[in-house]
Amino acid sequence: MAEPIEFWFDFSSPYSYLASERIDELAAKYGRKVKWRAVMIAAAFKVSGLPFLLTVPLKGEYSKRDIERSARFLGLPYAFPSRFPVATLAAARGYYWLHGQDCGKAREFAHAVFRAYWVDDRDIGELPVVLEIADQLGIDRDAFTAAIATPEIKDRLRQETDAAIARGMFGVPYIMVDGEPFWGADRLPQIDKWLATGGF
Amino acid sequence: MAEPIEFWFDFSSPYSYLASERIDELAAKYGRKVKWRAVMIAAAFKVSGLPFLLTVPLKGEYSKRDIERSARFLGLPYAFPSRFPVATLAAARGYYWLHGQDCGKAREFAHAVFRAYWVDDRDIGELPVVLEIADQLGIDRDAFTAAIATPEIKDRLRQETDAAIARGMFGVPYIMVDGEPFWGADRLPQIDKWLATGGF
Repeated sequence: MAEPIEFWFDFSSPYSYLASERIDELAAKYGRKVKWRAVMIAAAFKVSGLPFLLTVPLKGEYSKRDIERSARFLGLPYAFPSRFPVATLAAARGYYWLHGQDCGKAREFAHAVFRAYWVDDRDIGELPVVLEIADQLGIDRDAFTAAIATPEIKDRLRQETDAAIARGMFGVPYIMVDGEPFWGADRLPQIDKWLATGGF
Repeated sequence: MAEPIEFWFDFSSPYSYLASERIDELAAKYGRKVKWRAVMIAAAFKVSGLPFLLTVPLKGEYSKRDIERSARFLGLPYAFPSRFPVATLAAARGYYWLHGQDCGKAREFAHAVFRAYWVDDRDIGELPVVLEIADQLGIDRDAFTAAIATPEIKDRLRQETDAAIARGMFGVPYIMVDGEPFWGADRLPQIDKWLATGGF
């Protein structure tokens, strides 16, 4: 059986949100699964020296417009949040803790976090908001709060981020298909062709 | 009649080359014309503070791969040149001089310069190479050489670059369709939909 497609994301990345809404169905078309991997993209920016996109003169303004248009192009709801960027450590750590218990629940949680931030303008940088999202999915708030404070979970997020950088990740969404890296929600059509043809 | 689509490019930009091979036919599908505008992209980088893409750690390596794959995806010949980047002043100035005489010839020249660099590995940073390209299109070498040394033509390239930056250009290809800016050869599908629907 083919290896799963790997999908690296940061909850604070709008293009990651766009890809998160399409990657599973795209993979399923070819009978493939997707491994979701939360990362702290700021760590990659330290390696590349790249600035946060939305703070770059000219490019930042364009990007806000491009993200909105890309969401409409993909038929996805989207609204730029009132607070940006936000720290997504709690959500990302919670994702890995959940993943250790129940993959399906972790995926549900990830979707809910993305949508809370990129559709419903909820501040996912605040722990109470993250706990509310968890609660709505039937996840125990106290267990969640305790888990994300453990050294194991903190290390996990760091290790996953470092491992992604070692695989070439410099931005998100970063998607690896059978050894071929793709960066950006706008590469979904190339991924589709790659999966259809086995590489081109 | 609708205004022409505007297409800003730098001959040293691989994604500009990719777009240059598709933009006219895409516009023609909707009965639209394209205005080609050469710029010096380094001037925009001074405003945005952005580095040259291919020199960025991690992202540079990815991009080389992405450009090759994107060329295959679009069905275009492509080979990374042995010398990169190169100064494209002579070619860009020559483009404007030709444009003042004969639009069609200027377009032919632009295609020939792009292909010389991005397909045939000819060093378009060298004036003799640019003159050879011009000569093959029946353009007078001496007139070309004299024209690109005039203050008028030098100013024209500077003014076009400044005007593009004033319109938000921070990278190339930069394409404006009825007031909507699109950056990157990967936005051609969005441009297609924009032209088909009158905006979405």
